[in-house]
Amino acid sequence: MSSTHLHAGSAHVVSCTTTARALWLKLQSILYKDTKGNTRNCARTTAAERRGEAVDEEGPDTKAHSGADAVAVVALLTSHTENPKLLFVKQFRPPVNAYTIEFPAGLIDPGETPLQAALRELKEETGYIGEPLEGSRIGNDVVHVSPELCLSPGMTAESIHVVTLKVDLDDEKNHHPKQDLDEEEDIEILRIEVPSLLRELDALAGENYRIFDGVYLFAYGLVFSGLADALHSEHTEAKGG
Amino acid sequence: MSSTHLHAGSAHVVSCTTTARALWLKLQSILYKDTKGNTRNCARTTAAERRGEAVDEEGPDTKAHSGADAVAVVALLTSHTENPKLLFVKQFRPPVNAYTIEFPAGLIDPGETPLQAALRELKEETGYIGEPLEGSRIGNDVVHVSPELCLSPGMTAESIHVVTLKVDLDDEKNHHPKQDLDEEEDIEILRIEVPSLLRELDALAGENYRIFDGVYLFAYGLVFSGLADALHSEHTEAKGG
Repeated sequence: MSSTHLHAGSAHVVSCTTTARALWLKLQSILYKDTKGNTRNCARTTAAERRGEAVDEEGPDTKAHSGADAVAVVALLTSHTENPKLLFVKQFRPPVNAYTIEFPAGLIDPGETPLQAALRELKEETGYIGEPLEGSRIGNDVVHVSPELCLSPGMTAESIHVVTLKVDLDDEKNHHPKQDLDEEEDIEILRIEVPSLLRELDALAGENYRIFDGVYLFAYGLVFSGLADALHSEHTEAKGG
Repeated sequence: MSSTHLHAGSAHVVSCTTTARALWLKLQSILYKDTKGNTRNCARTTAAERRGEAVDEEGPDTKAHSGADAVAVVALLTSHTENPKLLFVKQFRPPVNAYTIEFPAGLIDPGETPLQAALRELKEETGYIGEPLEGSRIGNDVVHVSPELCLSPGMTAESIHVVTLKVDLDDEKNHHPKQDLDEEEDIEILRIEVPSLLRELDALAGENYRIFDGVYLFAYGLVFSGLADALHSEHTEAKGG
């Protein structure tokens, strides 16, 4: 890794004031110091509360709670008789006025770890019982839980952990998955084979489904490494290298 | 691909009213019909304007403009003498009170195509001059521009296209990249080799950088296909398949 200068300045939020509310959203004004020491204004939107927990976000910190708001689950379906598949959810999302394709996801309850929230949300939204990907080292974790990630850092304070789970389709407990949805939820599940994911997402976008950027970029990453290698070869050949 | 039922209902937004504003953000109340025909309320946040263009979002449609708000650029740096690298930007983001690692990105100007916006934003934020990945077929496009993707569909109307560009480091025009930033922008660039991307992102998260979920999931996709294959083999071997 190379960087123009690795140690960034000490920009930080000075104060944060809620100026409006609508259902579970708050609009906030932020006063902050930028990297050069100038005082500037900014706005953001944030959730008014997490499940069962009021969030007080006035004052110098941008978050009264620690850790991410939510989890998104990369669920790998394995089976003796079928190719590995990935699991997605499809639902109407009023903020984008469209049916979306997303990872199973949801808020982290008070006291839950991201892994516990992922197992619970997977079960509620899809009916499947997952298990951690033990023994499969990715990044820093054996059981893979991502660091806290931001979703739209120019506009919201939202953050998630991405948790990877395995779903054993051969296990009897996953033979008849049964969703446990809230009354206002209407979620369908999609199972897509790993190698065809990007192609299937492009086809769904063509049918006016709106794809979550993280799902699309994950699918894009699946094919990108081959592309980068091919381009590198072309490039070095063309140059006679 | 398999689905519980492929043709979803016809949920849709009935009306959308702005209830508050703060700088470039608007808070809106949405009335919508759900898939079962019930009328429900929802809230979202949205940008008050796009660059040089007022956005009027009252009425039945959730968007007066067509297409995405912004682009994010997957920039592949190629060179005769170095391994392929990917290009990211690092900046302070007040809404998350942290320095973030993101793709070069920005709003689409009126009249611009996503590809034009991607070339312009890459040049402004990083100084590099990109070119389309011609001849490298990914998904539906030869020059790869993703469909319109949503960033946080439970909360905002924001959407982006992901555009892939190649940056030829051997070309003289890319020997001394010079950023062209707005006065309030302070953006550093990061170049990370493709195979070590996930590891480097985990390390940056450990130094309290907040990673954009799309960047992390792209990196995760880069390593995931090998993992899925390995698990599938383990699984079929264990079952004697």
